[in-house]
Order: sequence, then C-alpha cells, then structure tokens
Amino acid sequence: MPVLRYAYLGPAGTFTEEALRQVAGPEDAHYLPQTDVGSALAAVRSGDADRAVVAIESTAEGGVTATLDALATGTPLVLLREMLVPVQFTLVAAPGTALADVRRVSAHPHAWVQCRRWLAATLPGAVHVPATSNTAPAAMLADTLTAGGPDAAASLAFDAALVPPAAVRTYGLAPLAEHVADNPSAQTRFVVVGHPGEVPPPTGTDKTTLVVHLPDNEAGALLAMLEQFAARGVNLSRIESRPIGDALGRYSFSIDAEGHITDERMGEAIMGLRRRCPYVRFLGSYPRADAVAPTVHLGTADEDFVAARDWLRRVRTGEAT
Amino acid sequence: MPVLRYAYLGPAGTFTEEALRQVAGPEDAHYLPQTDVGSALAAVRSGDADRAVVAIESTAEGGVTATLDALATGTPLVLLREMLVPVQFTLVAAPGTALADVRRVSAHPHAWVQCRRWLAATLPGAVHVPATSNTAPAAMLADTLTAGGPDAAASLAFDAALVPPAAVRTYGLAPLAEHVADNPSAQTRFVVVGHPGEVPPPTGTDKTTLVVHLPDNEAGALLAMLEQFAARGVNLSRIESRPIGDALGRYSFSIDAEGHITDERMGEAIMGLRRRCPYVRFLGSYPRADAVAPTVHLGTADEDFVAARDWLRRVRTGEAT
Amino acid sequence: MPVLRYAYLGPAGTFTEEALRQVAGPEDAHYLPQTDVGSALAAVRSGDADRAVVAIESTAEGGVTATLDALATGTPLVLLREMLVPVQFTLVAAPGTALADVRRVSAHPHAWVQCRRWLAATLPGAVHVPATSNTAPAAMLADTLTAGGPDAAASLAFDAALVPPAAVRTYGLAPLAEHVADNPSAQTRFVVVGHPGEVPPPTGTDKTTLVVHLPDNEAGALLAMLEQFAARGVNLSRIESRPIGDALGRYSFSIDAEGHITDERMGEAIMGLRRRCPYVRFLGSYPRADAVAPTVHLGTADEDFVAARDWLRRVRTGEAT
Amino acid sequence: MPVLRYAYLGPAGTFTEEALRQVAGPEDAHYLPQTDVGSALAAVRSGDADRAVVAIESTAEGGVTATLDALATGTPLVLLREMLVPVQFTLVAAPGTALADVRRVSAHPHAWVQCRRWLAATLPGAVHVPATSNTAPAAMLADTLTAGGPDAAASLAFDAALVPPAAVRTYGLAPLAEHVADNPSAQTRFVVVGHPGEVPPPTGTDKTTLVVHLPDNEAGALLAMLEQFAARGVNLSRIESRPIGDALGRYSFSIDAEGHITDERMGEAIMGLRRRCPYVRFLGSYPRADAVAPTVHLGTADEDFVAARDWLRRVRTGEAT
Repeated sequence: MPVLRYAYLGPAGTFTEEALRQVAGPEDAHYLPQTDVGSALAAVRSGDADRAVVAIESTAEGGVTATLDALATGTPLVLLREMLVPVQFTLVAAPGTALADVRRVSAHPHAWVQCRRWLAATLPGAVHVPATSNTAPAAMLADTLTAGGPDAAASLAFDAALVPPAAVRTYGLAPLAEHVADNPSAQTRFVVVGHPGEVPPPTGTDKTTLVVHLPDNEAGALLAMLEQFAARGVNLSRIESRPIGDALGRYSFSIDAEGHITDERMGEAIMGLRRRCPYVRFLGSYPRADAVAPTVHLGTADEDFVAARDWLRRVRTGEAT
Repeated sequence: MPVLRYAYLGPAGTFTEEALRQVAGPEDAHYLPQTDVGSALAAVRSGDADRAVVAIESTAEGGVTATLDALATGTPLVLLREMLVPVQFTLVAAPGTALADVRRVSAHPHAWVQCRRWLAATLPGAVHVPATSNTAPAAMLADTLTAGGPDAAASLAFDAALVPPAAVRTYGLAPLAEHVADNPSAQTRFVVVGHPGEVPPPTGTDKTTLVVHLPDNEAGALLAMLEQFAARGVNLSRIESRPIGDALGRYSFSIDAEGHITDERMGEAIMGLRRRCPYVRFLGSYPRADAVAPTVHLGTADEDFVAARDWLRRVRTGEAT
Repeated sequence: MPVLRYAYLGPAGTFTEEALRQVAGPEDAHYLPQTDVGSALAAVRSGDADRAVVAIESTAEGGVTATLDALATGTPLVLLREMLVPVQFTLVAAPGTALADVRRVSAHPHAWVQCRRWLAATLPGAVHVPATSNTAPAAMLADTLTAGGPDAAASLAFDAALVPPAAVRTYGLAPLAEHVADNPSAQTRFVVVGHPGEVPPPTGTDKTTLVVHLPDNEAGALLAMLEQFAARGVNLSRIESRPIGDALGRYSFSIDAEGHITDERMGEAIMGLRRRCPYVRFLGSYPRADAVAPTVHLGTADEDFVAARDWLRRVRTGEAT
Repeated sequence: MPVLRYAYLGPAGTFTEEALRQVAGPEDAHYLPQTDVGSALAAVRSGDADRAVVAIESTAEGGVTATLDALATGTPLVLLREMLVPVQFTLVAAPGTALADVRRVSAHPHAWVQCRRWLAATLPGAVHVPATSNTAPAAMLADTLTAGGPDAAASLAFDAALVPPAAVRTYGLAPLAEHVADNPSAQTRFVVVGHPGEVPPPTGTDKTTLVVHLPDNEAGALLAMLEQFAARGVNLSRIESRPIGDALGRYSFSIDAEGHITDERMGEAIMGLRRRCPYVRFLGSYPRADAVAPTVHLGTADEDFVAARDWLRRVRTGEAT
C-alpha cells in the first residue's frame, strides 16, 4: 500500500494534526501542513495530496463554513471518515510569567470564543491579540525564546497564548494552565477528504453527507425536501443552511443523513432529491465516529425494498396483484 | 381472437348491459347475465366467464360496496377498462295507465333514491314497491301483458315502474315518462374485470386502482400513506374507506391513482405502500373513460427517474457525485 | 323533564329499537316508529319528534349512506350519543317447519349479506326473498299465523325469515336458529340525533363528527386537510368519503375526530378546516360508546393552549419574548 | 423625543456605521462605537445604549453567528428594523504606492474572503495580513501618515488595505482601487436591536424572527416544526441551524417568517411552536428592507381567522353547525 500524502491545517501542533494522528501516524504517512482549509482541499484537488484532513463542525461554532463551502462546489471531493477531537486549550507563556502578569492573550478568534468565560474569570480585562492560527503564537514564543531567551519574550505582542495541547508538546513549552475550555464537552468533528471513487464499504453505522439546493424560493420547498427523506424512513442527523451567495434569501443545505449510499432507502431518497432539486452533490458515505447505527423504520430495510421491487416486477407482468 | 364470455348483472335491459355494449356487442361476445355483482365476479373466478362487467361507483350512491368488497379480497381479479353510463330512468306502465293513476311504483332501491325529488313532485304520495333489480318490474310487466293483456296488469303489486331505457327497448314497453333523474348529470361508472396478467398497455391517460390497509390504528397512518403518493408526485382521483369488517374502526382504502403501473413514479409509490402497509392489492391499470392525462409534477416524469437511477449508479461506483 | 319523542326505524322489534332501548325505555319516552332513516330524521327536522335514533355504521357494510347523506346537508342536526348493538339474527318460521324444509328465506338485503356464509353452509341453495325491513317478515308471519294458523303460512312467499332477536320477542315467534351471523363480533353503531344547541358537556371520552368538502380537486387537498388535524395533535377514528353527487370525482368526507368541540386542540383544528374548506358542518360532540379517552400528544392539552395564548398576548404587548 | 444612544461595531468608517446612518444621522443620535457585536448588544442589555446596530447576515458568509448566538440566549432583546448595505471595499495605501508595489494586504478575514478572486487576479501572490476590523488598517495608515508622512508607511506591516468606502472618507485616504468585490451584488443585512416592548406596528411588509429548539433528537421533529407554519399558511424566508453548544447534533433554529406577530396566522403558528418546542424566543416583528408583502394563502387572512373563531364560538353555544 502506498504511503498517502495528507494535507491538513498545520503546522505541527494543531487540533487538525491531532485528528490526523487518529488516521495515520507521521511514520505511516506524509504530513503536508497547509495554511488554511481551502489550501488543504486545493492540494487534493490539484493532486499535490491524496487526502485532506479538515474540521467540519464544532460544538461551539457550528459548521465550519470554509469547509462546507469549499466542498459544496468546485472539483468533486468526498468525505471518507470522521474523527472527534476534544476542544481544550493550554495557556502558555515565557518561563517566569505568572497568571497575574498576563494582560495580552494571543489566540485564534475561535479559541478566544471558546474560552471567554474562563478568560473573564481568570484574566479579567485581558486583551485579545488575534492569531492567524492556534499554533502561531506557540511557534512565535518558541522561536523568540530559542533566539533570545526568556527576556526576549518581552518584545512579543502578547504575554501568554491559548494553544492546543499538541502544540505544547511540539514546541516544548511550559503550560500556565491546562484544560482551558468553557464547555468541558466541547469537541470538533474532523473529516478525511479524498477523491470520489474511494467510497468505503458500509459498516452498519454510516452517515451520508449531501449538499442540496431547493427547487425554488417557495414556501414549502424545505418541507418537500424533508419529506423525500421521511417517505423512505431516512433520518437526518444534521442540517445546516448556507447562503448560495448570489443573493440574500437563497440557501444551500448541508445535510448528514443516517445510513450509507448503498442502502436502498438512502438511494431512493437521494434519487428523489436528484429529481426534484436543481443541485444535489454527494459528499460521501463513511463510518460515524460515534458508531451509532441508524434506526430502521417499518418497511425500510434493504430486504423490504428488494421484496417490494420483486413484487412490482411480478405485478407488472401479471404474476402478482 | 376467441369470442369472450362476459358475465354481467342481467337480465337484458340493465344499465350494466348498456355498459357492456360499449365494450362488445352481443354479436361479438357471449353475454352471460347474472343475478348480482357477486355472481358476475364469481363467474370469472370460477372460469365460467372470461370477463365481468360491474358497476363500481355512481354519482348518487358513491362506491358500489358489493363490487369494492368482492374485488378487495378473494382470488385476484383486475380492472381492464372503465365505462360511463348516464343514470336516467323511464317510467313504464301497462297501456292505458295515466300518470294520475300511479300510486305504487316498483323500483330498485337505488333507482328510487335517484328519482326521489321527481317522484315527490310528479307522483306525490306514491308508495315504493322495492324491486330486486332495475329490470325485474319491466320483465314482470311484459310477462303479465303478454299472458293476460292490459287488464291482467291490475293483478300486479305496482301500477308503474322505473326501469332503465334499455329495458324499455328489450321488453317492448311504452314509456309514461322518460329521462327521469333528480340529477341530470348523474352517471354510473362500470368496469370490465378480468384475470391478472391481462394488464392493458399504457395509453397516457390511465388510472390505477389499489386496495390498501393501513399499518395500524395510529393517527397519522392515513397521512403517511398519502405522503407515499405525494413524495413521488402521484395524484389520487378517488379514495374511499371500507370497513375491514372484523371490528368497528378498522378500514381498508380503495384508491384510484392517476397514471399506469408501468410509470416510474407509480411503481415507486406502490412499492412504498407495499413496504409499509400490511395489505396492498393491485386492481389494475386501465384507460380513464374521460381520457384525462395525469399532471406530471417537476422531476416525476419517467425520464427523471431513469436519469436519477443512472446518476445513483454512477455515484455508488464513484463515477459521479 | 318532559317525555321526549323518539323517531326510529320501526316497527317494534328492529335493531334500531334495541338501540333506542339503551337510551330510553318505552315507559319513559314516546316511541315513534318510522319507515326509514330519512323519515326518522325528517321527523326531527319537522318537529314531529324530539330525537331520532338511526344506524350510522356497521362492521359489515361500513357507513350507513342514507344516514350520512341525510345529515350532511339540509336543516342542521347533531349527534348526541352513540350506542353499539351486536348484529345477530334469529331464523324464524311457522311452527312445524324444520331447517330442511326451508328453501325461501326472507331477509333484508343487509341481513342476507351478513349471514351469507351461514346460509350457504346451513341452507345451501336457499333463495333470497328480499324484505323491506328486518322485521317485516316477522310481522307478516305473525299476522298470518294469527289469522289462519300454521297452515296459513304455506301461502307466504317465504319459508323462513332472518329477523332481529327483538322481533322474536315482539311478535312471539319460535326460533329455528339463533345467533346467526357470519362474523360473531359484528355490530352496528347507532346515534341519537337532535337539534343543535343540545351539545352534551365533555365527558373526557368524546368524539366529534364533521362533514368536510375539500377546497378543490387538487392532489394534496386531502393531505392538507389531514394536516390541519395533525398539526394540533387531533387523531381521527373514522374517515369516509361520500360522493357530493354533482359529478364523479367530487367527494365529501365524513369524519370522526377524537375529542370534544370544547377542547382547545379540536377547536383550533376545526377552525383550520373552516378557513380552508368550502364546506364544514359540525355534527356534534358526544360520548364514545367504548369510553376510550383520546391520546393527548405533547403540547396539545387545554392548559398548553391556554399557556401559549397567554404567552402570545404578553409577547404582543412586549411583556415576554 | 429623546436622542437615542446607538451601540455599533465601530469605530467610524465601518459598514455598520453606514447601516446606522440609514437609521439616524450622527447629528440626531449618540453614536457609541464598540469593539465587537457582543459588546454592542451588551451595551443595550446593560442600559449603556438604547439600541444596537449589528450585522446579522451576509450574502457571502451567511448568518453572523456572533449576532445570532448572542440574541438567542441571555437577556431578551428584539429586532426593530433591518437595513441592507452593499459589500464593496476600497483598496487604500500610502500616497505614491502603486498596485504593483503591493505585496502585503491588510484586511479583516471576512473582507479577504469576499475579495479573493479580485486579489488573485489583481495582486497575485499578495499575502494576507489579518486585521481585527475593517477599519483598523485605515486608522493605522492615517495615524502613521499623520505622524510621519508618506515615508513612515514603510514601517507598517502591510502595503495596502481593503477598507469600507466609509472609512476612506472618515480617514481622508486616497483610494488605489474602488468597488472591490468578487460578487457585485453582495450585501450585508443589519438590524437595529432594542428592548422588548418596542415592537413596531405592522406595516404590511413585515417579517418575524424567532429562535426555536426542536422537541427532541427524533427524525421528523424539524418536519413537524415546519408543518406548524405550513398548517397556518406562514412562509419562511430564512432558516438557519446553530449548534446549541452542549453536544454535537443538537441544534437551535434561527427563523425569519413572513408577516407580523399581530397577524392571526403568525400568532397561531407561534403558539403551535410554543406548545410543542422546549424553547421558543421571539426576536421581533419589523419591516422588511425589501418591502415585500407576504403571500396570503387561501383562508389565512386575518378576517378568515376572525370569522372562523366567531363560527366556532357559535358552534359551541349551539347557534351554528
């Protein structure tokens, strides 16, 4: 088996890297750090990478719009797997810094949002110094300390930084506070993205991700779309609207449906969407990270579809009624 | 082509015979008159007839329950064609009888109901002498006149009778009043019934008749059944409930859906019923007497289904998304 | 309390009389026997009676169309109560008649239908002599026996008759066979009909009967009507279509909904029908004979409606959000 | 009328200020610039401001999650008005800078995203220098030029900046390129937020904003919620899911419904939500910026509700049926 090349939001030490490690260790794969989600997906599209690992949803912020939007259009890509990573930060600073000294905190805006209450309680009045990534301030701090020693840190624009636990390890930093998170059960869902054609076989606990545009602006179009799923007994586990972007009031829906594209009920539901909606894109069927099996409602198991199809065939030829 | 044997509600002169004549003249077919709808259908089931012609619905009385119930269970039969016959009666009496003389009117209970207002206006106080069929009093009158002449009619239990126009011709009677009907647009729908396997090909203006039992007593089961049709864009032109008969509150539904069993949308809708409902019986796809084509909603034409199926196949093999 | 006058399908000895006795004994009410359902209802409309007792549904034949149709239009009447009567017949004949002697059986067509299998098994080849009511042959037999003794019965057009158990008592006849019924659990539902304004108070186990015409011929109109109930959590226990009568394909729906007109959810659902449908007639709220309480779904109890209304009022005045 | 205090995302020159100017000029109101959306809303909650003007949705990025989330919980606030502002940027630089000199572009991440294609075409290879707001680089540039003259600009971390047109005016800068936007019809929707109780009267072209949590995780809960609107003929113009934040897979829905809280149909639909859903928050009824009137479906006008309510009252008292 060839060693796969994974593009991901780098550098080393990010939450994304932690997600990637659940899939393939650095000794088994090529890690190709990228500056943003768009670049990671572009690397797969261009052939520079075989896979991308990107965040797709978080408890705190909801859908990762950059990911959802990049997958919704452009060269087709599909999701191959999902991974969950707890969202907890470590506050790091130069050696000798005490919590009481911290007035400026570097943090990616998402990190800042997820630690607001902790910050307000622990570092009241601390100013947010926005970082372009979760690990940037870790790298900056490590570089500064390496080059100039503890005193050099005084030249930095921040006194401390909220960084992923993995970054502490990667950059050899000392934690000032660990497990920093307003919501202790916060987590981010990551996905492995690859080219179509690599659909993994059903495991029994799969989900299927789709992008669907509604047929028109009419009231009831969303209702009609949901009924395509309901009529076949397919449950949805996530539905998010995203602007189509050409005008206010036009939406694209990003949907996770319980089950696999090879399930009869899923196939029929998706064909229903395909027939009625102006745009349907399949973004993959892959195992759920929580390994929960879909509820199978009365008459919607594969064998029910097969039996009904056989019956219809016999009705049409006059062998049954 | 062999000469077919048609069982129908006889004797000569009934509305049913008039319907049968729309299908095959007496010179082209064997006419097998029966005493009731059940016998006509039984004759097909037993092989004594090739086809039955029976009434299935009338403007005045609704579904003909004897027909609906006999078709819903037992050896499978299917509808092959439908015919419409206007429901107007002729009042006949012995020669010399004037309207003013008529106090007792023989009529089948259904005929009586459909002429009530005319009777109340024209023959106020007239008493109903129930007949076992529409033509029975015509035959009785003709026999009596033949045997004993006009005076013999005085021995009859009725002074006049409401009979089908065809019976006037058949029995050579003189009309006292014609086109008797409270509702001038009243009509009865008849069907030709035969064995499964003889489904006529689609004509573009077909309907499909079904019998369906709901999955349970739950509220919402009827709603769910209707959604099986709606999700595939199939319109219903008739839906009637009939008691299943084992207990009050349990119903069987007799349904006419617009379209042919070979239509993709019809096939998928019917498979949906088959999967969810404890009992589904196909009673035939056949041309509508009014030759109205079904409305085809967005995305529900056969080519839409074929294209969606092809797309799904390619999605499953990784060729499309 | 005044003694009420009850019109019912008479004469003495009918199933309807048996139903009436559940409501008021002959010593407590005036019994006004009528020749048919239409006359019984007309007697209330004309003021000749205070109430009518009529059959509305049977396990074997479904809705009693004469009753449903007579209630659906004309001077408004309402249902006040329902009663269940088991449908079992007694075969009666002149003294000395043995089962083996019986070749001609008088029976009302409905009775004949409900005993077909028993007749086929017990009296194979017996001919049906249709009666205009269940009790007519009992009266005829009793009169004949009284007038001429056992031998006089030979002049009758029938050898035996299927009559209601009550008729055996009323006319003092000897049973040849009892509990005759193909379906031992067959029963008929009767209702007490009166003038609007006499709505009985809720008992907790009520049903509400309605007549509704759909807004148009469109597909989905029935679905939309059912959703008016579903959106308020009101279950239906019966829905029957009846032809409107002006043309094939136009239907009126007769509906029993679980609950009382004074229930909040019922009121809102019915107002929804009233707003959307061209014709809605309230036919009464009355206790269910089976005393089953309606299922109350989440958020549809009266107090939920009251609380929501209070909240809306406060939202509109800016006191709540 | 007292002069109102408006908190908004400042400083001077922001798109938000441009939206605020549509509501009240600086001469008619107190402008209270804030550092972020949360602070602007907090200022109203604390009483430091009477109103807040915040972005709620943009064509490019969809719902403004900070706004949606801050409104969804906490001390109740309501929307009073909405305003649309076109999203186009001006590229500014120090005097003497040519487009060819620009390698580092300061821009708020949202601005960067909305000009990506223009940047790739016009300034290929330009590096993004993230700004904390749209106007920050304008202020920085103006301050630097004021303090040190054109040459001083060389010390800045960027060569040029994408800023709102209003900021060019505010800071007296020279444009290098105007009307910069990948999508020429891009716009942002802003709202005026105030305290409950200040609901503006209906104008005939209103919308109503709500936050709703679904009753449970069950499939069909979203469908059931949408049916609460559909059953009363209320159209939705926007529906967005937001994570509730306690666990993946639990969503809050932000909804814009066509019409005003004082509309009968809207009131009944919202009461339906209130009865069924664990959490419903009213976020205001206010005029639509596009002044489009809602579609009023058959039977859903105010007078239809009033007439139906009157009819129900009369049915309950026996005056009508």
